[in-house]
Amino acid sequence: MSNVEDLLKQHGKAIKEVYLDWENGTRIEEEVLEAMKPFYLEKQFGNPAITHRVGWETYDFYVKAKTTLAKPLNVQPQSIALTHSFTESNNLAIKGLAKMNKKRKKIIVSEVEHLSVIHTAKSMFSDDYKVVILPVSNDGTVNVDMLQEELDSETLLVSLQSINHEIGTIQPVREALEIVKDFDEKIFFHTDATSAFGRIPLDLSNLDVDLASFSSNRILGPKGIAGLYIKEGIKLKSIYEGQLSVETLSPDVENPALLAGFAKAVELQFKQFEEIREHTIKLRDKLMYGLHTSIERTDINGPAGNRRAPDNVNISFLGCEGEALTVDSSMNGIYASSGSACTSRVLMPSHILTAIGRKPEEAHGSLLMKVNRLNTEEEIDYVLEKMPKIIERIRSITGGIQI
Amino acid sequence: MSNVEDLLKQHGKAIKEVYLDWENGTRIEEEVLEAMKPFYLEKQFGNPAITHRVGWETYDFYVKAKTTLAKPLNVQPQSIALTHSFTESNNLAIKGLAKMNKKRKKIIVSEVEHLSVIHTAKSMFSDDYKVVILPVSNDGTVNVDMLQEELDSETLLVSLQSINHEIGTIQPVREALEIVKDFDEKIFFHTDATSAFGRIPLDLSNLDVDLASFSSNRILGPKGIAGLYIKEGIKLKSIYEGQLSVETLSPDVENPALLAGFAKAVELQFKQFEEIREHTIKLRDKLMYGLHTSIERTDINGPAGNRRAPDNVNISFLGCEGEALTVDSSMNGIYASSGSACTSRVLMPSHILTAIGRKPEEAHGSLLMKVNRLNTEEEIDYVLEKMPKIIERIRSITGGIQI
Repeated sequence: MSNVEDLLKQHGKAIKEVYLDWENGTRIEEEVLEAMKPFYLEKQFGNPAITHRVGWETYDFYVKAKTTLAKPLNVQPQSIALTHSFTESNNLAIKGLAKMNKKRKKIIVSEVEHLSVIHTAKSMFSDDYKVVILPVSNDGTVNVDMLQEELDSETLLVSLQSINHEIGTIQPVREALEIVKDFDEKIFFHTDATSAFGRIPLDLSNLDVDLASFSSNRILGPKGIAGLYIKEGIKLKSIYEGQLSVETLSPDVENPALLAGFAKAVELQFKQFEEIREHTIKLRDKLMYGLHTSIERTDINGPAGNRRAPDNVNISFLGCEGEALTVDSSMNGIYASSGSACTSRVLMPSHILTAIGRKPEEAHGSLLMKVNRLNTEEEIDYVLEKMPKIIERIRSITGGIQI
Repeated sequence: MSNVEDLLKQHGKAIKEVYLDWENGTRIEEEVLEAMKPFYLEKQFGNPAITHRVGWETYDFYVKAKTTLAKPLNVQPQSIALTHSFTESNNLAIKGLAKMNKKRKKIIVSEVEHLSVIHTAKSMFSDDYKVVILPVSNDGTVNVDMLQEELDSETLLVSLQSINHEIGTIQPVREALEIVKDFDEKIFFHTDATSAFGRIPLDLSNLDVDLASFSSNRILGPKGIAGLYIKEGIKLKSIYEGQLSVETLSPDVENPALLAGFAKAVELQFKQFEEIREHTIKLRDKLMYGLHTSIERTDINGPAGNRRAPDNVNISFLGCEGEALTVDSSMNGIYASSGSACTSRVLMPSHILTAIGRKPEEAHGSLLMKVNRLNTEEEIDYVLEKMPKIIERIRSITGGIQI
């Protein structure tokens, strides 16, 4: 990545641009920024615990904004803890719970959880925790029979995501929760709902989980703020220390501007929840089946139909290499990410794709594309028009390796 | 705080408003928001590790922005780790270092450090760490003779702030550093430079500390982003786990919009470093000595002259109660904070003020006021005009208790 400026010069900007890499970066809408502006420019909002007018106004705003966040989850505002990211929410749920409940030392997660769940659980090996990683089927669904078998009197926590972030699998959270609570009500249940919030209904008063993570930047809100739902009565310990204010679990997290943006993004996403859902399902299917039928040797990763997240498209293009896929797509103005955790330091196939049985070369040769309310049908038409030629070119370069 | 709306109704807005509570909340300037806007609205910036045009542009921006942050510290851009807050920076410095260096188990801090340092150090009691808390003189200066006495072969880390955040004491960091490194070069030295960055020169290539925390929102940048300088060769472990990108020590911290705001705030603060410094010293002295001479029974907290931060005013008004001070000031449009950690949950005197020997009632009856480049001389005139009457009224209510 040392010659990024050269890369950018060589790589002329495409005339049309279609952004589908929402998993890795999002912009926000003018309306969301407008909601944030007063907190940036007009007032010195900051600490809702301070006893003067500005502090009271901030506190008042806090109560209202948290009510907005809690509403679509159908929970009480005071059950939402604010954090800086869903990564922090997941860490707080697991480590914060473990610190308050030291008698039980077994944690069960699935092998397709986000790395903030898997790495957090594994980091506890050093404190003598036993971590069980549940396998998934070839569409990414967690094996609940194995969950049943793993439960015992040592089990502290089960953490299962609501929707997989890479291949869109809607997990059987309700079924898993029933299995867990039927076995022992004292076992805690956490769901990383980051990729589900705003996509599928999540009534947490009905789906009675103990802990649920969700985030602003996955619903077109600003990055830097997220939430953790904590069922009444459950005690967590903060994962780092500092001066506490109204948010007792994440010191110094109070950020009125970002909270205002988060609340506005929630309003916008849930005001037209059904319309957005239908819109994204339509674009998803058009894109996914369009690519699958027009390009040979493609595999759809993840489930079909009702078991798939409304916004998720993930396709392996056999005989293609991941970096070539994202670079060539980008030259045509199409932005997506490949099935590789490709940074300047590591080049590893996605742990999700290997979990569902993809060989490393199939994982590398895959594209993750998400659609949301900002995407249009015309954009999908453009992608469907361009992709066959892109894939053909890459395959001709790689020599048409048959895998 | 349950009737905040009622409080706001009763508490009519003052005609003139002077904001001096910069320690607890800051606004940003139009120019800073303008620098952030493209990253919010125009592009889907997010992950600088992704291999497509948007990812490369983000990476390119990252390199440039970190160069801007590193410049006033006179260090290499790659020695700056980004975090969400100075609280996280302080936690990362202490816990992250301890996790990588488990042989030594003694940590030395001062009793006037920010709570994110003191609480972090104390949280390590449970892992068998010994924590030594150095006393301070009555102007808040750390006792370096005691530091010398406490050093031993078990000492892992000494953490001393550059400037105290409440009473403005400029600490003898260079002297302390020399004592530590003369005793044993292997002892690490961290300084929480949050209240010093942008106020006093901090050439870290010259002042050869190992670790230094600094923050965006203390120099009129957006909240939610901060930095930790890490000297080349020093290894830290992240304090929470997740998917890593270009920032390896704080998973999911990459936030181009906030980074753009941070970089712009650094530019603005350091472009006119000397002018801002002179301006704030002028306002500080006018306010501090003005209040001290016009109101009886006042004590200045912290040192005078060159040993005091350019932006810090902290005065105890004897015979006054803290909440009355901030509320009555607020009714006159003057926003400051009292020497109490006053939230809906706790009402404790500031640990800084008790450390310098103030009785609890003196600590509660104090006001912390900071000045910066956005404050004007005319605002200080207004405060000086209003405060004598405010104090007189409070003292008449409290019955003029002599303390």
